[in-house]
Amino acid sequence: MSTPLPPPRTAVVDAVSRALAEDLEPLGDVTSSLLPADLVATARFVVRVDGVVAGCACVTETYAQLDPTVSISWSVTDGDVVAAGTELAAITGPLPSLLTGERTALNLLGHLSGIATATAAHVAAARAGGNAQVWDTRKTTPGLRALEKAAVRAGGGRNHRGNLSDWILLKDNHIALYGIADAVARARAMWPAKTVHVECDTVAQVREALDAGADALLLDNMSPEKVRECVAMVATSARRPLLEASGGITLDTIADYSATGVDCISVGGLTNSSPVLDIGLDIESGVETGAGSD
Amino acid sequence: MSTPLPPPRTAVVDAVSRALAEDLEPLGDVTSSLLPADLVATARFVVRVDGVVAGCACVTETYAQLDPTVSISWSVTDGDVVAAGTELAAITGPLPSLLTGERTALNLLGHLSGIATATAAHVAAARAGGNAQVWDTRKTTPGLRALEKAAVRAGGGRNHRGNLSDWILLKDNHIALYGIADAVARARAMWPAKTVHVECDTVAQVREALDAGADALLLDNMSPEKVRECVAMVATSARRPLLEASGGITLDTIADYSATGVDCISVGGLTNSSPVLDIGLDIESGVETGAGSD
Amino acid sequence: MSTPLPPPRTAVVDAVSRALAEDLEPLGDVTSSLLPADLVATARFVVRVDGVVAGCACVTETYAQLDPTVSISWSVTDGDVVAAGTELAAITGPLPSLLTGERTALNLLGHLSGIATATAAHVAAARAGGNAQVWDTRKTTPGLRALEKAAVRAGGGRNHRGNLSDWILLKDNHIALYGIADAVARARAMWPAKTVHVECDTVAQVREALDAGADALLLDNMSPEKVRECVAMVATSARRPLLEASGGITLDTIADYSATGVDCISVGGLTNSSPVLDIGLDIESGVETGAGSD
Amino acid sequence: MSTPLPPPRTAVVDAVSRALAEDLEPLGDVTSSLLPADLVATARFVVRVDGVVAGCACVTETYAQLDPTVSISWSVTDGDVVAAGTELAAITGPLPSLLTGERTALNLLGHLSGIATATAAHVAAARAGGNAQVWDTRKTTPGLRALEKAAVRAGGGRNHRGNLSDWILLKDNHIALYGIADAVARARAMWPAKTVHVECDTVAQVREALDAGADALLLDNMSPEKVRECVAMVATSARRPLLEASGGITLDTIADYSATGVDCISVGGLTNSSPVLDIGLDIESGVETGAGSD
Amino acid sequence: MSTPLPPPRTAVVDAVSRALAEDLEPLGDVTSSLLPADLVATARFVVRVDGVVAGCACVTETYAQLDPTVSISWSVTDGDVVAAGTELAAITGPLPSLLTGERTALNLLGHLSGIATATAAHVAAARAGGNAQVWDTRKTTPGLRALEKAAVRAGGGRNHRGNLSDWILLKDNHIALYGIADAVARARAMWPAKTVHVECDTVAQVREALDAGADALLLDNMSPEKVRECVAMVATSARRPLLEASGGITLDTIADYSATGVDCISVGGLTNSSPVLDIGLDIESGVETGAGSD
Amino acid sequence: MSTPLPPPRTAVVDAVSRALAEDLEPLGDVTSSLLPADLVATARFVVRVDGVVAGCACVTETYAQLDPTVSISWSVTDGDVVAAGTELAAITGPLPSLLTGERTALNLLGHLSGIATATAAHVAAARAGGNAQVWDTRKTTPGLRALEKAAVRAGGGRNHRGNLSDWILLKDNHIALYGIADAVARARAMWPAKTVHVECDTVAQVREALDAGADALLLDNMSPEKVRECVAMVATSARRPLLEASGGITLDTIADYSATGVDCISVGGLTNSSPVLDIGLDIESGVETGAGSD
Repeated sequence: MSTPLPPPRTAVVDAVSRALAEDLEPLGDVTSSLLPADLVATARFVVRVDGVVAGCACVTETYAQLDPTVSISWSVTDGDVVAAGTELAAITGPLPSLLTGERTALNLLGHLSGIATATAAHVAAARAGGNAQVWDTRKTTPGLRALEKAAVRAGGGRNHRGNLSDWILLKDNHIALYGIADAVARARAMWPAKTVHVECDTVAQVREALDAGADALLLDNMSPEKVRECVAMVATSARRPLLEASGGITLDTIADYSATGVDCISVGGLTNSSPVLDIGLDIESGVETGAGSD
Repeated sequence: MSTPLPPPRTAVVDAVSRALAEDLEPLGDVTSSLLPADLVATARFVVRVDGVVAGCACVTETYAQLDPTVSISWSVTDGDVVAAGTELAAITGPLPSLLTGERTALNLLGHLSGIATATAAHVAAARAGGNAQVWDTRKTTPGLRALEKAAVRAGGGRNHRGNLSDWILLKDNHIALYGIADAVARARAMWPAKTVHVECDTVAQVREALDAGADALLLDNMSPEKVRECVAMVATSARRPLLEASGGITLDTIADYSATGVDCISVGGLTNSSPVLDIGLDIESGVETGAGSD
Repeated sequence: MSTPLPPPRTAVVDAVSRALAEDLEPLGDVTSSLLPADLVATARFVVRVDGVVAGCACVTETYAQLDPTVSISWSVTDGDVVAAGTELAAITGPLPSLLTGERTALNLLGHLSGIATATAAHVAAARAGGNAQVWDTRKTTPGLRALEKAAVRAGGGRNHRGNLSDWILLKDNHIALYGIADAVARARAMWPAKTVHVECDTVAQVREALDAGADALLLDNMSPEKVRECVAMVATSARRPLLEASGGITLDTIADYSATGVDCISVGGLTNSSPVLDIGLDIESGVETGAGSD
Repeated sequence: MSTPLPPPRTAVVDAVSRALAEDLEPLGDVTSSLLPADLVATARFVVRVDGVVAGCACVTETYAQLDPTVSISWSVTDGDVVAAGTELAAITGPLPSLLTGERTALNLLGHLSGIATATAAHVAAARAGGNAQVWDTRKTTPGLRALEKAAVRAGGGRNHRGNLSDWILLKDNHIALYGIADAVARARAMWPAKTVHVECDTVAQVREALDAGADALLLDNMSPEKVRECVAMVATSARRPLLEASGGITLDTIADYSATGVDCISVGGLTNSSPVLDIGLDIESGVETGAGSD
Repeated sequence: MSTPLPPPRTAVVDAVSRALAEDLEPLGDVTSSLLPADLVATARFVVRVDGVVAGCACVTETYAQLDPTVSISWSVTDGDVVAAGTELAAITGPLPSLLTGERTALNLLGHLSGIATATAAHVAAARAGGNAQVWDTRKTTPGLRALEKAAVRAGGGRNHRGNLSDWILLKDNHIALYGIADAVARARAMWPAKTVHVECDTVAQVREALDAGADALLLDNMSPEKVRECVAMVATSARRPLLEASGGITLDTIADYSATGVDCISVGGLTNSSPVLDIGLDIESGVETGAGSD
Repeated sequence: MSTPLPPPRTAVVDAVSRALAEDLEPLGDVTSSLLPADLVATARFVVRVDGVVAGCACVTETYAQLDPTVSISWSVTDGDVVAAGTELAAITGPLPSLLTGERTALNLLGHLSGIATATAAHVAAARAGGNAQVWDTRKTTPGLRALEKAAVRAGGGRNHRGNLSDWILLKDNHIALYGIADAVARARAMWPAKTVHVECDTVAQVREALDAGADALLLDNMSPEKVRECVAMVATSARRPLLEASGGITLDTIADYSATGVDCISVGGLTNSSPVLDIGLDIESGVETGAGSD
């Protein structure tokens, strides 16, 4: 199988330059100024707990922007499953540079690996119940969507709409105004090749959307039983639309939804509520930094 | 008491414009294009669970940038404690504009309110044990530090260093190289008015840092008992430095640390691991969106 | 029918601020400096030839950024068909400001109206032959895609992919590597709700893509006869995919393609080769500027 | 003779980074994600029709920003006249990178080469009639002026004002207010070393501008005969100002204007109405892309 | 006479937003956070010494970006000569906002007024000797050229080249390579309407440049006597080119150069070495800030 | 002793790219276009007067952004004391590139070295009187603060607050509202680890601030005698706060203030009124540019 699509390089470059400016200006790293500028050291990014890695390109870019004399050697790549204690990468260069970039690198790597790790956990749980894929949503951290959606892919998840420009998602307001059949027809007329996705709160709406020829149905806030009912109904249609279950589904309940035969399950919490993955930077000589420091 | 310092307006304006571009380009909101452009509606931001609000300025700015004809009326302000079901604000304007800005507004409001809410929970827990303040760290989401640190303030917390330019924090590498006394002296010589903060892993280091005249001591990864020992030692000094406990302290253990008499307790998780606060946008006519949609 | 989706406001604001800086810095409009700063005048945007208008928001934004005391009153809106001599808008304010913004406003308005006008011509020609819609492509002017795709919509066209992130378009390289059936399956697995579009050079490939369940087929460089053959083949399938004809189709040949029954016809020239629509700014007192000046 | 001035590197870097972000965000190239990341290929930029090349630096910059492992080898340079079928450059690197950058590279190269080609055609036509140079105008595509003016130079044309800051161009409003003599005097007083250019609609105005000592005269919307009359009048003056013919001059009429003895002829259409030059990217193995695809 | 051209608004907006971000991020004005957010006050910008004002638009923009509820009322405008103690403007709004914007506003206003004041002093000194105008150079502060060149205009000076794109200035390297006659001819051929300015170190070079038909001559590092000799030589030519004296001319020597009859005298120090004009912000209640505070 | 902290690389990159765009767009260096593009030359940055160097990284970055084929070899580094005539660096590359970057490089290098030189002069003068350090202020040139504060460090000075986010500085308004004791207490409560600095106009206020436990006292506009009195008073306190003298102190009076025993003396003029250090670029063949050219 092909590897997950990495984030666009433009997004990596922009996020890192904003993060460095944010952490350094106006004076720079006043503490690192106390160290000899030419003291070369090696440090290792080590994961403290089990997880899935994402965001490697951000770490590389951080040091490239900060100090091109720092070299970096990766032992893993985005999407790798790692056990607590695994060394992810080693960096060598002037100690002040290593320390100045540490927090920017760790913030990006930890945040994105946290998302990949949470995604992988949901994927595993879903697989325990059935074959449903795990989807993200547009509930991302403003300014980091491209990186977060790539982290979801690294964790084995799939991406829902990239943004509002991506595809049609008809919700209650559109349906209230036009009814499902007319709303789908209008969408097709205006945006002929866009996916038309319809949010359905009831089985009756699923019926309507099916008849209207929607490409995908979002089954919103339904119980697993209701979802199963929809799956059955759809199975008999000429061209089975994609079925997405959504709405308050968690790691605890995802297997039940997966077992319904639904195609995918979207979880907003992957991108807006995943805790960071604990990763530290151990400076050679065994000194280590990490959870306890600012 | 004065109200917490709001985020710099420059940070609000930039974060919102990046978030809107990210959600809209290149085509715009293809789904809202199906609605009549002149259909005016009112919608209400309603919090689904108890929490503390932060990020109001981001919501106002979202609609100002998107469509200046949208008006907004706030019932709360950053730092307000709100119960599930509380209306935070009402917006009135063209329905397509209300919907197009919904996710950007909610992503910012939910993320920042999530941080404020988690902060408030830690503040309450700390207060149950003693008088320690709750601090954030530099473990923030890249690109959003100014907004996240303001959310911590809204939640009743206090800010640790704004960034690497803010003050001196001597850690193991600096100490290994120079010893604490010399490292503090070098910091004072180079940056005479900057706070000098020393990370101490042992009681012996606390003694040294005290003698060196550090302004603040970071007690790293110590048990409450060890912290208590440090508090006692410091109490007898001519000018008691600020004592910060740090390292893996959680909502469960923060009261115990607060009870030691330490001045402040820093928690990286406030900014890098807080789940979003569940807030939805209810369109008039009772239709509501929220947890279940992309 | 609903009005075409306007361009994202973020794109309008950015394009205008870049255009103004490009035309003004470093010294400003050295010629307008000779005029009395307080001489108020009125000027009218007048179209010199028949056409379709697009880009009104860019003109409004130009004067808003340049001098908020300039007022503007529109007689038309994006998508309006206008005859030579029609007044599009009147602006009133300090004469130096009116002149300083003239070229930026006209460059945007003329370029986008040129695209809308060319689109409308293709739409009319296609309609003369059949019911095919007219599509743009990603062959847009770098930095202006969002505005140009909105201009296509204003002209009655439809948008192909917004960008590479939008949907899947399998071309010869992917097909050579995997074959159509496998390529479609891989696309579905990786991007379950994305439109899967397959470029077909032969009728045999159309057959394959149909069997593979593609959502849309791009019939590349086929004669109208071949396209008609494909339309017939597809008509018998359970769910007729969208059929796009593409490749060197012009205003002269588009009716023939439309007559085949194909769903849409994409024309790269709409966005990368349309001449500007001739629009001038007539200063009151009958003085006029336009085609002859820098 | 020296080679034409290339565009400022800052303009190349900015245009490319905006174009890449526009084509890639938020998800990246979803189609290229299906290809093996390590499949190396070679592709050739080949021009499909005769023309003049411009924009090579943009192609190089596109791949430098996208993937530094892609190497590029140029067979031509800006300003080269090329026959249909000529290979312009060969690129070698990971196939997904080659394809992801294809449209950005082609859009810039095709647009700028289109301008250079149209310019060269006008230059040749003008030369057939006389010695007049061909000028561009400020009628450029917003955001791309620096690149487009460089493309005009590559095509053998000359640049009119770079922007409003560049030199003085007195038009009807200034003349109506002050008269030509006074307007020129005011311009000289305020901007002593700036070129003072006067737009003249009549032979009488040419006389006045000549007496006022203008550096250049824009003969606006005059017939070749009238222009010839102005040339004769000016020939007898102590210091012959530069004479520019302008206003609706096209490829068909430019020779007649050139034959008048005028110094230069400005053509807005070079930059705002030139069709793209058809250039494709042929992937090795003979597979080719180009006119027919999105 | 018309008023001096103000700086491009795009330059004002950009400079202010960079300055505010630089002074405020990441935490904001931590000191102003101690004040009641709703305490309204009035403050006055008062000049402490005699001078000339420039940069008013930057002050207005500072408060517009920071807090739109602050109102500002100006008593002066760019170019006004003011005596020590003059009130320039009064601002009313929340005291924290007034104080937060104080330094940004004063830094811009003081810097630009310093340039205007120094320019005015040079203009007055030059006028004491003759009629030479005072010119700036490209020796400006990086990032502020547009504002600084506008400040020179406010002080009664004139602008030399806006930048390298503006006009031709042939210096020793070009002359060494081609000789003056050929260099001027090449410049005319390539850039027909651009001012051609030739740097002359000797009277012989002045002769050559005169014969070559240069538009302007830069008399570099010549004594007033030598300049006078050049003025005399040029006076007899058919069309007297503009004569600029340049090179180490100061307030002490400018009258002597002006007395030579030269047209203009350029002084790099206007923009790169002028001290700030001392302006303070006096908060109502008589409290004042200014020279003594950070 | 460790070397002074260099400016953040993000600030160098941004300042240079803005400066280059400002000097080059839209057309580029029209004069250098006359030179053969492949004429390679060597040039030397030579200081014309005694001084201290700062801004080397900006010169390197200028040529890196403009033309990566230019190589640069430094003989000095930031902070070096240099005598008139010293070669600072040699650059080799295409002559047009050397000349195009000259002014940007010199403007940055001259401005920053001017600040370093003025700082070093103040440091020497202060040392003649006592042991006081020399401080900058926030009176910096908008957009260049990070570079200017680094130049002060290069000159042997120390940095006052980086910006408003850095530490607390209580001035008259805060004191008038709360009194010193309460104001300090509020600052400590809100910002526990921030330096609390109190501006004192009288000896009585010094007493109050001392009792309130302020970290630093700004002695504003006091005579040396008054400062001496404050030093004596503070000497007897348990923990001597830092004492800063400020307000109109110049090179002439700084020794007297230093002799009082005060810790540091802040001088706004270092960053807002220092003349540029005269540095030129000598092209090989002995040709030189510098003070006399635009």
